[in-house]
Amino acid sequence: MIVIPMLVYASAHSGTNVISAINVMPMPASVKVSAGKLRIYLPFTVGASGYSDRRLEKAVVRMQHRLRRRTGLTLPLGLAAVGTPPTLTVAVKEAGPAYPKFGEDESYSLEINTEHAALTAHTVAGALRGMETFSQLVTGDADGYYFPVVSINDRPRFPWRGLMIDVGRHFEPVDVIKRNIDAMAAVKMNVFHWHLSEDRGFRMESKKYPKLQGMGSGGEFYTQEQVRDVIDYAADRGVRVVPEFDMPGHTSSWMVGYPELASAPGPYELEVRWGVFDPTMDPTREETYQFLDAFIGEMAALFPDEYFHIGGDENNGKQWKENGQIQEFLRAHGYRTTAELQTYFNQRVLKILEKYGKKMVGWDEILMPELPKDAIVQSWRGYKSLDQSAREGYNAIWSTTYYLDHMGPAEYHYLSDPLPEDSKLTKEQASHIVGGEVCAWGEFLSPENIDSRIWPRTAAIAERFWSPREVNNVADMYRRLDVVSVWLEQDGLEHLSSTNRMLRQTSGTEDLGPLATLGKIASPEGVGTREQMNHHGTPSTQLVPLVKLTDAVVPDPPYRRQFAELVDDLLNDAPKFSLGSEELTKTFQQWRDMGPGFGALSAKAPVLSNGSGRVLELQKMGSAGLEALNYLRTGTAPSGSWKETQLELVKQAETPDVSLLRLPWLGSYRELILAAADVGSLRKMDRKEWKQRVLNEAAKLEPAQKYTW
Amino acid sequence: MIVIPMLVYASAHSGTNVISAINVMPMPASVKVSAGKLRIYLPFTVGASGYSDRRLEKAVVRMQHRLRRRTGLTLPLGLAAVGTPPTLTVAVKEAGPAYPKFGEDESYSLEINTEHAALTAHTVAGALRGMETFSQLVTGDADGYYFPVVSINDRPRFPWRGLMIDVGRHFEPVDVIKRNIDAMAAVKMNVFHWHLSEDRGFRMESKKYPKLQGMGSGGEFYTQEQVRDVIDYAADRGVRVVPEFDMPGHTSSWMVGYPELASAPGPYELEVRWGVFDPTMDPTREETYQFLDAFIGEMAALFPDEYFHIGGDENNGKQWKENGQIQEFLRAHGYRTTAELQTYFNQRVLKILEKYGKKMVGWDEILMPELPKDAIVQSWRGYKSLDQSAREGYNAIWSTTYYLDHMGPAEYHYLSDPLPEDSKLTKEQASHIVGGEVCAWGEFLSPENIDSRIWPRTAAIAERFWSPREVNNVADMYRRLDVVSVWLEQDGLEHLSSTNRMLRQTSGTEDLGPLATLGKIASPEGVGTREQMNHHGTPSTQLVPLVKLTDAVVPDPPYRRQFAELVDDLLNDAPKFSLGSEELTKTFQQWRDMGPGFGALSAKAPVLSNGSGRVLELQKMGSAGLEALNYLRTGTAPSGSWKETQLELVKQAETPDVSLLRLPWLGSYRELILAAADVGSLRKMDRKEWKQRVLNEAAKLEPAQKYTW
Repeated sequence: MIVIPMLVYASAHSGTNVISAINVMPMPASVKVSAGKLRIYLPFTVGASGYSDRRLEKAVVRMQHRLRRRTGLTLPLGLAAVGTPPTLTVAVKEAGPAYPKFGEDESYSLEINTEHAALTAHTVAGALRGMETFSQLVTGDADGYYFPVVSINDRPRFPWRGLMIDVGRHFEPVDVIKRNIDAMAAVKMNVFHWHLSEDRGFRMESKKYPKLQGMGSGGEFYTQEQVRDVIDYAADRGVRVVPEFDMPGHTSSWMVGYPELASAPGPYELEVRWGVFDPTMDPTREETYQFLDAFIGEMAALFPDEYFHIGGDENNGKQWKENGQIQEFLRAHGYRTTAELQTYFNQRVLKILEKYGKKMVGWDEILMPELPKDAIVQSWRGYKSLDQSAREGYNAIWSTTYYLDHMGPAEYHYLSDPLPEDSKLTKEQASHIVGGEVCAWGEFLSPENIDSRIWPRTAAIAERFWSPREVNNVADMYRRLDVVSVWLEQDGLEHLSSTNRMLRQTSGTEDLGPLATLGKIASPEGVGTREQMNHHGTPSTQLVPLVKLTDAVVPDPPYRRQFAELVDDLLNDAPKFSLGSEELTKTFQQWRDMGPGFGALSAKAPVLSNGSGRVLELQKMGSAGLEALNYLRTGTAPSGSWKETQLELVKQAETPDVSLLRLPWLGSYRELILAAADVGSLRKMDRKEWKQRVLNEAAKLEPAQKYTW
Repeated sequence: MIVIPMLVYASAHSGTNVISAINVMPMPASVKVSAGKLRIYLPFTVGASGYSDRRLEKAVVRMQHRLRRRTGLTLPLGLAAVGTPPTLTVAVKEAGPAYPKFGEDESYSLEINTEHAALTAHTVAGALRGMETFSQLVTGDADGYYFPVVSINDRPRFPWRGLMIDVGRHFEPVDVIKRNIDAMAAVKMNVFHWHLSEDRGFRMESKKYPKLQGMGSGGEFYTQEQVRDVIDYAADRGVRVVPEFDMPGHTSSWMVGYPELASAPGPYELEVRWGVFDPTMDPTREETYQFLDAFIGEMAALFPDEYFHIGGDENNGKQWKENGQIQEFLRAHGYRTTAELQTYFNQRVLKILEKYGKKMVGWDEILMPELPKDAIVQSWRGYKSLDQSAREGYNAIWSTTYYLDHMGPAEYHYLSDPLPEDSKLTKEQASHIVGGEVCAWGEFLSPENIDSRIWPRTAAIAERFWSPREVNNVADMYRRLDVVSVWLEQDGLEHLSSTNRMLRQTSGTEDLGPLATLGKIASPEGVGTREQMNHHGTPSTQLVPLVKLTDAVVPDPPYRRQFAELVDDLLNDAPKFSLGSEELTKTFQQWRDMGPGFGALSAKAPVLSNGSGRVLELQKMGSAGLEALNYLRTGTAPSGSWKETQLELVKQAETPDVSLLRLPWLGSYRELILAAADVGSLRKMDRKEWKQRVLNEAAKLEPAQKYTW
């Protein structure tokens, strides 16, 4: 575990001021919106001109089903017969690669006028991307549904736009994987990086080494048939599947069945704790490479993608240092560090990959002298390794700022860039930054809550990967994200429904009352804080059910922005303080009155009871919020230590507690407290000046956001 | 389509007055609850004594996973090693049938004291039922989780406790079927009746006649591998799978690929309309029976259950009457009616079933002179056919009052009994009533809303099938149903989450505002009303997306009871009228103010706009409700025509409109209006007398509930 103080995320008003006229995400490279509407009159037909195949046809039907479900209109399904002039013409020049390929042409153009729509693409992949744009453009008005008149020319900024899901720490069934692939395709992502093995689980069926899944998975693994099905499913949607088998570290699960792979004698057990562990493959024995040759050969035949991820991260070197034979090997080869020995191991693995026609991807630890130039380095430890890779001529992908388990807001991820404007790379070097990957590490992911950890934040990152760098207005991103987030539910994603369902399951009631409030306004602490807190109590392991309040609430809840807007409206409305005050009053009353309801629920469902401290703080903040509104409206400053008491309360609410619930709107709440405390100054100065003074004071008190992993 | 005025459903206070001390559904045959708690201290182990097998082990692990998710406790998984004294001992005498069998022993007893729990059963099937009871008993208090001390002896009242799902009219994917089987098992149902073919779709893969699914399903069918998987899944949970291939009518989908089966020349197309259609198998050609012999042989090998459902309903005889050759066949055999010809057909099919070792089940039209005594008659047209079957010595199952598509309340189904107390059958005859089946017909079912149509109402019917007839207190049923409904979500059922998700999908926003209110307080009109309304406008077909408001809202929403309770509290609190008035005020304000929000949403999502009439009525009823509260609290009777105006409004709101939204609490609302109009009388009489007077007047105005199918 590495703990790094991270970039402070930007305020809701950073980025350029471009507000888009359409609700599409990712924003296309070039959009011109004109007056006029292409009305959906039945039959609204789709026809192909030029190249067409089964993949295109299936995509057309999927699009038609989605449009049906959105509009309730009985749109015809399938491609219209040749000859009849269709409403939407899909013109594809050529097939493009049958299996999606790194760097393939994904560009398209979409011309919609009041009579007709035309989607043009070089390849089927481009048409798939264009159909996602087309689907997102559907709009309604009092006269019915329509598409706006637009002219769009679009192509991705980066060719590698990935999402990594760690199924090693917690297994995720095939349906979870599929619905996430659907969502990826909806926002034009094209690489599903499947992190298939970990100390805690080996999730892939090997027919050559059946003890891998047989003893290393607790029965939770994918059959080869399921994997083939997922690969086909993804390919249909223009998504590549890159498997990762992490080695030589993170391999406890391999060694349960095959202890001879390890650098220390067995037996080994499946690891259920979190963290980095010692078991590491023995790089000095030829048998290790014979095993890997057979295993990689088997996997290479299964996964059609040209890239193969070998992990390579977080080898702590302990087993190597403690093994006399390995130490002798180091001396014999003149290696001074275990890192050099890992380079040797990687070189051997690389030969195996090459034998089976695969190129290597690895975490940035693989960056080493003899790495071939067609390898790809996945940077997770900062820009240093990313830039170094690019300077040395390696293609590199950026993940450092896309770790979802920090539970940071979408805007933090959105504003970080694989190739920032101030990058020192030359143009040629910069061309080696080929994209990025969102990382969903699995310590606290269950099939029940994984969707809400990945989405909708990943849609914002998808825009970073696809759209021009200049598309970076945070307010506009959030406006569109709220819309796209809802559409992302269309193929089964549960990110908007899981919170209340999980709260129902633990509380045993449909009437959630204060739990529903908590589910809306709280977010989970990040992995670093969670692990720290866990070290103080019962250690958290793979076996602990993920059903606590912190597991149910979502990161970056829209409520943070809604509350900020209410406070902003209120302060702008000085000295009347009327705007937004009704809503805020209701909110604060709700908080103030949460206690009895929460108490009654948690008395019957003790799993909820660790939230009682936060709820008590909310009750107090509700009362104080009502007082603040009163001070503001009457223009009377509070007496005595009110301000200090309230600021102390905010500080307490900002401090992680056993609930692992974060209240992400505390900054706005503090503004309200400071405004109330300072309402007397309004008489002495302009209201804008006064507001700025309040905000400045609030900014000073804002704690630095740290993300850890 | 048959339209029959049905039993008026009973009020919420009918049935006996037994209020149960536990939240289990179905209520066990005998329960004794004592003081004391079996606390869940870790490790909370489960061990087997006596017979044990893989099916039992898997069920134990499923139970442990559920208990983990409810409690957040890291309960150990699997059976504890022999020797260590477990917390729960599961003692099974013998395996029982490997595949669940009609009439098998499902009894069990459960003894929980403060130290230990013991589940005893003759067979694994009984243990499965007992584990469902055990799971439902888990409870929490301030000190943690526990099981109450109970002594339970339990066995089913009826051996055939079924749910029929029609996948012919709309296809339902395997995951939908599986989660419904999970829910069935949770409430101890044991027959999944799979209605696999219809005019609108043939959903089963036949390898012998691949054009059945190839041309008759629109690509939506189950592979044999999937069916085998579902059968295993169900068997693991003690649920039998009985396939139905409806014949000789309801067979358009067969004839698309095999027109030679029909009694009139083809070609045939897949039917997309609702209703009863003409295409019927030709019972006079030997080729028909050769086809059926091969097909039934193939299916008989796939489905292990001893029963095979041949449908047999709703043959309109038209094709037979219009076919000269068939008419000649009638004359030659001396048949006077097409019903007699169908008897001949059934006899021939029966021979085929017997050849493959299957017994026949059919809709009550199969009741015919030469039906063998081991056939089962499924009564759907009333007690007449049920009783006749029993009198003639046939086993019979009851479905007439369990048609979910009427969208009636759970209590209506709950209080109807396969063998009512006043049945005229002798004891021997009564023994032929072997159970019942809930019927989920598919005209308006989609994978998105099917769960909410089936659940939780089916849990109440499951209690009717399992528990003693005397367990019939409606209030207690609803109290437990609300709890069980939440637990039913545990394996993926979407009945509590689908409404808001569907409303988000059509409105495009997470902030549902007035739509959320509508989603809570409205219910869908039944199939009869829906078809009538559709005849006035665009005909409803299989192709129309099921995404309207009426498709999203749920039948028998808890709100009906919640609102009734508020009004009841208020009237009981005469002449203060304080109890419940705060909540009612909030409610009525919400209704009054729905207009602008609903207008804004439907302006962008025209698919919602057919709800505007109902919303306008709700706005008016909100205003009038506030007026009523005011009249009551001030003791001032309204002037002039207020009462008539409001009653007229209620009547209008009771009348089906294009929205197909029903407001199932209008009866209680009318009570409120009548109370307000009559508040002056309170001075002249006792408040109980006054309330009764109001209720009497309201009862007179209550329209009779009709269910149609």
